[in-house]
Amino acid sequence: MEKRDLLYEGKAKKIYATDQEETVWIQYKDSATAFNGEKKAEINGKSVLNNEISSFIFAKLKEKGIDSHFIEKLSDTEQLVKRVSIIPLEVVVRNVLAGSLSKRLGLPEGIVFEKPIVEFYYKDDALGDPLINEDHIQILKAASLEEIEFLKKTALEINVFLQELFLSCGVKLIDFKLEFGKDQDGEILLADEISPDTCRLWDLETNEKMDKDVFRRDLGNLTDAYQTILNRLRGESAHV
Amino acid sequence: MEKRDLLYEGKAKKIYATDQEETVWIQYKDSATAFNGEKKAEINGKSVLNNEISSFIFAKLKEKGIDSHFIEKLSDTEQLVKRVSIIPLEVVVRNVLAGSLSKRLGLPEGIVFEKPIVEFYYKDDALGDPLINEDHIQILKAASLEEIEFLKKTALEINVFLQELFLSCGVKLIDFKLEFGKDQDGEILLADEISPDTCRLWDLETNEKMDKDVFRRDLGNLTDAYQTILNRLRGESAHV
Ligand SMILES: Nc1ncnc2c1ncn2[C@@H]1O[C@H](COP(=O)(O)OP(=O)(O)OP(=O)(O)O)[C@@H](O)[C@H]1O
Ligand SMILES: Nc1ncnc2c1ncn2[C@@H]1O[C@H](COP(=O)(O)OP(=O)(O)OP(=O)(O)O)[C@@H](O)[C@H]1O
Ligand SMILES: [Mg+2]
Ligand SMILES: [Mg+2]
Repeated sequence: MEKRDLLYEGKAKKIYATDQEETVWIQYKDSATAFNGEKKAEINGKSVLNNEISSFIFAKLKEKGIDSHFIEKLSDTEQLVKRVSIIPLEVVVRNVLAGSLSKRLGLPEGIVFEKPIVEFYYKDDALGDPLINEDHIQILKAASLEEIEFLKKTALEINVFLQELFLSCGVKLIDFKLEFGKDQDGEILLADEISPDTCRLWDLETNEKMDKDVFRRDLGNLTDAYQTILNRLRGESAHV
Repeated sequence: MEKRDLLYEGKAKKIYATDQEETVWIQYKDSATAFNGEKKAEINGKSVLNNEISSFIFAKLKEKGIDSHFIEKLSDTEQLVKRVSIIPLEVVVRNVLAGSLSKRLGLPEGIVFEKPIVEFYYKDDALGDPLINEDHIQILKAASLEEIEFLKKTALEINVFLQELFLSCGVKLIDFKLEFGKDQDGEILLADEISPDTCRLWDLETNEKMDKDVFRRDLGNLTDAYQTILNRLRGESAHV
């Protein structure tokens, strides 16, 4: 497999073409950004950790029968994935109230929901990735009603799996963001990344934050937190 | 029926208790406000027009079997209505893209939807009446899933009726906002007002705005526009 032209440079990853039409080469970056790009920093080692964690999770998901764009980890910072046409929606699942939803509803962070909830945000940086409802998704032609149902169902299945995975290593899954895309056959596939950049993860006992909020809110060393997540996922270190 | 204590003074109406527990006395005000109270003016005659239009519409709705809090018009600026405990949701129906949704989706005003859409906003001035989804409504305990379905169904029925009513007098119903409340028996009832303050109304032929956007966007004389709507509803003046 050969790396070809840069197709897209995002805030956290670069996407390259390969010599095969149906795959792209993802290079994780050391950049951290928050608040729609307003806050920025270079954080040494973040790329390696997110690539590692994301690859680990996609591989585990596959074992459980949940397919994704992930093909293989190529290096410390690189992955080979199936090329998809990204559906312009951020699919967010929440188990516990935190972040922007806490502000939107005027309720304190930490409220545990009776059942997980799903939200859709329109992936459009210029618009600030606004919350939208299912009627809006159809107006935008971002997804059909059937596809919306599939996205919700799949997101909730992934939630069950991730909750278990993290719980087993002493971590509470508060919320997370997924992106999906369509492959050449028009099939919807989980894409992008699943990492502490895209999940809220709190220590089961201390509620210590171990995710991008460490960066957003200046709570300490980001790579220490991400390294702890990776170690715990690998079962390499006890969590007490 | 006697007017008693002032219970609530809103931006557009005052609500008074009466000598009967189950009714309240609504006094329409001449105040116009927009952008969550940021823009304000006193507009002579607005109270009379909105009271007249709202009473007219509630009476017509009743004829069609859609009940509301409306009991009777008491004077130029006053209505007697059933007292309800307001459900803290603004239920918005849209037939054509306009206003805040046009900004949210980054699409131009005027796009006609294939079918009407329904949105819920959380009635909370301090939070800026944010858009919320059905999961959020349940978290807020603002309404149950069953109640949400009832609100959507009823709002869409009201839309069919209002679209016809306005179309028959040369006016396009672009969108509108409803409020519902629960009466003493826990039954959900349409409440608040239906007027050019709460609807977007465009002339069928010229697309001239005949609603609160005239005030929001400084497009001309507000009471002239509202008076035209009232005249047309009454069939008192030809619309060509
Ligand atoms: N399998 C895939 N095929 C094609 N594009 C993908 C795939 N997986 C992820 N992407 C896209 O590649 C980009 C990843 O870069 P990054 O995460 O840095 O973007 P970003 O800064 O978050 O910006 P964006 O708002 O575009 O997501 C995203 O646009 C993402 O949607
Ligand atoms: N039948 C009713 N019983 C009790 N309250 C009602 C009834 N109908 C409407 N209301 C409430 O009375 C108030 C009407 O006042 P107004 O429309 O001026 O309020 P507002 O400035 O829009 O503020 P708010 O954000 O409270 O709606 C609103 O709070 C409305 O929800
Ligand atoms: Mg991204
Ligand atoms: Mg009001």
